[in-house]
Formats: sequence, C-alpha cells, structure tokens
Amino acid sequence: MTEHVVYVGNKPVMNYVLATLTQFNEGADEVVVKARGRAISRAVDVAEIVRNRFLPNVGVKDIKIDTEELNSERGNINVSTIEIVLAKAA
Amino acid sequence: MTEHVVYVGNKPVMNYVLATLTQFNEGADEVVVKARGRAISRAVDVAEIVRNRFLPNVGVKDIKIDTEELNSERGNINVSTIEIVLAKAA
Repeated sequence: MTEHVVYVGNKPVMNYVLATLTQFNEGADEVVVKARGRAISRAVDVAEIVRNRFLPNVGVKDIKIDTEELNSERGNINVSTIEIVLAKAA
Repeated sequence: MTEHVVYVGNKPVMNYVLATLTQFNEGADEVVVKARGRAISRAVDVAEIVRNRFLPNVGVKDIKIDTEELNSERGNINVSTIEIVLAKAA
C-alpha cells in the first residue's frame, strides 16, 4: 500500500488542507500530515481544519513526534518533527 | 491525583524544559505539556528535549490535538491546541 503524505511547509495553511482533501477524494483511507520545526503548528491546523470543517468522517488515528539531526554550515542542529495520521472512520 | 501541567508560551524553550524537569523531580509521574497556536511547535521541542537530553526514562504516553474558539475583538477565531502527556516508564 502506498503511503499518502502531505509535507507541511511555509505556504498558506489552505494549500495543505487542499492537498490533504485531494488525497482523500482520490481514494486514500489514510493521509499522513508531516512537518518539522516551526511548521509543526501549521500541520496541527491542517489536521484540525480537515476534520472539523471538511471531512467529519475523518479522525486523528495517531500522532508521533520525533527529533531529526540536520547538518548545517553552523554544525548539527536538532529539529523536532511531527506526523499526524488522519484516517477515515472504518 | 493532581494533574501536573506546563503551559508553553512565547518564552525561551529552556524555561519550559526546566519547569517540566522540576515537576518530575518533585515526584510527578506524568506531566502534560500544553500549548496553542504558534507555541505548538515549541511544546514539541520541550517534550523532545526533556526525553532525549534530560530524562531518558520519560516517554511520550499520549498526544491530543484539538481546536478552541477564542472570542476576540474581530470576532471568533479558531486556534489549534496540543496536549503532550509525558510519563515515567512504569
């Protein structure tokens, strides 16, 4: 099974809401909303808007947080990540 | 049982890390890290720093996201919230 993923970055939140809705409309049973760093707040907004405003039959199945080490010019930086699994009610 | 809570706002992340460590050191078995809006990313940082850098025996027991309606001068605003339950290993 293919994993359906939406990576949330710095664009307006509705861009990612639309991307998530599109994946569900194309038949996905689960969509994973992923983000890191400051975009984490926006990923939570995406999940909340999708399930509250557009798809009442979609719920939060799982949420994971983790830390990634990024190699930058100024040395290694730790950045937090989130994965929010949205799923249609069975 | 009293609920041990740390509300994460706009101060430096280490303030909230220290508040969380203090509650565990004073005997809490669980501490709930809460935030809303843009502070959500910082709450994830707090949880990750506490468990990765300071308290390896503490893990993420549960994460909940939700939406709160705030009444502001410009009308009602929806804001996302997060609750991260950190718990000592049994």
